[in-house]
Amino acid sequence: MKKVFIKDLLGLKGRKVVIHGWIHKVRVLGKLAFIVLRDSSGLVQIVVKGRQDLLQKARRLNMEDVVEVSGLVVESESKISPVEVLADELTVLNRATEVLPLDVTGAVGAELGTRLRYRVVDLKRPENLAVFKIQAELIDAFRRYLRSRGFIEIYTPKIVAMSTEGGAELFEVQYFERKAYLAQSPQIYKQLAVIAGFERVFEVGPVFRAEKHSTTRHLNEYVSLDLEMGFISDEHDLMDLEEGLVRFMFKSVEENCRREIKLLNVTIPDFDKIPRLKFPEAKEILSEYFNLREYEHAEDLDQRGEELICQYVQEMHEIPLAFVDLFPLSSRPFYTMPYDETYGRSFDLLFRGLEVSTGGQRIHNYDLLIRRMREKGLNPENFKYYLEAFRYGAPPHGGFALGAERLTMKLVGLKNIREASLFPRDRFRVEP
Amino acid sequence: MKKVFIKDLLGLKGRKVVIHGWIHKVRVLGKLAFIVLRDSSGLVQIVVKGRQDLLQKARRLNMEDVVEVSGLVVESESKISPVEVLADELTVLNRATEVLPLDVTGAVGAELGTRLRYRVVDLKRPENLAVFKIQAELIDAFRRYLRSRGFIEIYTPKIVAMSTEGGAELFEVQYFERKAYLAQSPQIYKQLAVIAGFERVFEVGPVFRAEKHSTTRHLNEYVSLDLEMGFISDEHDLMDLEEGLVRFMFKSVEENCRREIKLLNVTIPDFDKIPRLKFPEAKEILSEYFNLREYEHAEDLDQRGEELICQYVQEMHEIPLAFVDLFPLSSRPFYTMPYDETYGRSFDLLFRGLEVSTGGQRIHNYDLLIRRMREKGLNPENFKYYLEAFRYGAPPHGGFALGAERLTMKLVGLKNIREASLFPRDRFRVEP
Repeated sequence: MKKVFIKDLLGLKGRKVVIHGWIHKVRVLGKLAFIVLRDSSGLVQIVVKGRQDLLQKARRLNMEDVVEVSGLVVESESKISPVEVLADELTVLNRATEVLPLDVTGAVGAELGTRLRYRVVDLKRPENLAVFKIQAELIDAFRRYLRSRGFIEIYTPKIVAMSTEGGAELFEVQYFERKAYLAQSPQIYKQLAVIAGFERVFEVGPVFRAEKHSTTRHLNEYVSLDLEMGFISDEHDLMDLEEGLVRFMFKSVEENCRREIKLLNVTIPDFDKIPRLKFPEAKEILSEYFNLREYEHAEDLDQRGEELICQYVQEMHEIPLAFVDLFPLSSRPFYTMPYDETYGRSFDLLFRGLEVSTGGQRIHNYDLLIRRMREKGLNPENFKYYLEAFRYGAPPHGGFALGAERLTMKLVGLKNIREASLFPRDRFRVEP
Repeated sequence: MKKVFIKDLLGLKGRKVVIHGWIHKVRVLGKLAFIVLRDSSGLVQIVVKGRQDLLQKARRLNMEDVVEVSGLVVESESKISPVEVLADELTVLNRATEVLPLDVTGAVGAELGTRLRYRVVDLKRPENLAVFKIQAELIDAFRRYLRSRGFIEIYTPKIVAMSTEGGAELFEVQYFERKAYLAQSPQIYKQLAVIAGFERVFEVGPVFRAEKHSTTRHLNEYVSLDLEMGFISDEHDLMDLEEGLVRFMFKSVEENCRREIKLLNVTIPDFDKIPRLKFPEAKEILSEYFNLREYEHAEDLDQRGEELICQYVQEMHEIPLAFVDLFPLSSRPFYTMPYDETYGRSFDLLFRGLEVSTGGQRIHNYDLLIRRMREKGLNPENFKYYLEAFRYGAPPHGGFALGAERLTMKLVGLKNIREASLFPRDRFRVEP
């Protein structure tokens, strides 16, 4: 059970080891064979010298065969790794019996469509594994930061009878005799947990959006990093929290993913405060600074708007992140706490031109909630279980959600959000 | 933003504080009022002395009103808490406007049906919050243990086109123009991740079972703690891992949930090794030791069988856990690695009479996988994306899954698994 990973070999110079992995490359030159072996921690060169039986085996190796190698760890002059293994045994545990549909070594590129069709082979590329190690670190840091601040991790149902936004973009599920839906977000349940006295909660889980458009920044199923907290003063408490949280998440990647950062050439943003703009200011920047008059009467930000606001903040503050606060109530859900007649205490976090997070203070007053629901054309009857909770002691509260794939995509510099999802689900893709 | 939790008051004796919470109890006696305030960290007594304005306010308090209290922290002689707060301000942030349908203080019990109908109010009971703090700790410990052993946390799709077991017990989803299903388990995807070179992966996420029966130990949606690892020798590597993992999870609860353990009167099992029985031995114990001849030809364990095996192991070894290994292939999925013609390298972990985990070595040979699929009456065509991965270099591998709610239920000593789910989903319940 004591597993030796390739990355650990550096500390084992002069020792005999047994390692496992996949055949990444093979070259046999007369009485010498050079094999690059890959495991989840890295690459190492295996050298076969003289031994006829092993050279015979090496000649018959296929790319991606699964092998066990035993041998001596010695210093290496190859570019592959600072140490190499002089093999004295080589056992094939399982053959790769097909010619690979994609090149795993990165020498030959492939279209994203082909890559996703053969996703398992595509994921074998070390660059892909690095993306998901960074994603795992981001999410783990999210949890560590919140746990240390008294947040409790919760798990809420994904099969729901109520919708947060009133029915649009929901996937329908046949739940025995009745119709149900897949949760678009844990919004309702994380609020209920706060009201139930959990006070501060977070959840990492899948959310489902039946959006028909197909873009490079949308998935129909994605991982949402959600939190909700009680006893806030207003939405600035949430932006304070998110600022520190995102800084911590980036810092954790910087400290714990050095190999991956180097391999993918990732630039980790360095910042203390994230600039906060009000929506009217953002509109003004777009219509005045960028001279785009069509934004004068905008009630929301579109993709170009998000990109330009980020460009502006980058130019002014050299920070690739920006909060835009006080979005119009018209473009935000019914539970948004009003700031005045027109605007709500609801914000977006933009990162390198993309909205990666949305949050805000929620309404905690029952009567106001009913009124806003009606103004949005929703029927309070459909929200019975949600609404009644507000009669049993709801504290002032709010929260936000970060999209795990969007954050990964923008941090790593991926062109398409599908690359930040292990097995992406989009308009036309539900396999593999 | 610097939040003071009630549990932190002990260290703040002699200091002025501002705290928040829910009104748990109120007693007004002439010029004195005793209020028990509750937040997510505990209970504290608030004392109002002399101040007419505050006494007036105290008289008008409802159970579960949400308040802010400022005052001096002093030693207490009450049974509530070792310190109390002498209030000099009391602000109601939001009223509880309805008479509570359930008693939050625990003085009056209620039926589970009523409790789940008013789940938000039910969750306000400190005992319930304690259950979910223990659950969160169990799951966090699961992650910590695996991360430190080179496992990568993954997030796999819950909307799937393939089923693991061939179609039974699946919820159907309308995915745009086509039919899809909710994943019964991440089985296929965690195997694919291992084959794709991730080597060791784990996932914490919802799984969905359209089982029609309604019992005290089944949910139709639950949280599965899954892992899968490459380069194992056989299923004993997995049982070794699970033994250490579960021991660590229990130990973490013991160390980090002292208040909750005390409140719920939880007994944490203390063990080094978990006894391993082979299925034929288990059958023999049932038919010989317990003299139940009907088990002589059993191909699986039923609930009574699981209870009696646990009872036997408890009597023999004083350990409330047992592995049963080598289940008949007939009762296990197609991907189970055969041990011989009859038995498979597949095991259950039983805990206090309940199966809390299932795992085993998987087949990594393509031809054997196809053969077993056909023997089970499944059509390999339906598993195209899964099967093809086995032609591109699949290592020997295996894994297991622990049910978060079952583990919580048995550790805490709950009678019904619904109590271990925040908002349970069962045959007749999809709300709240």
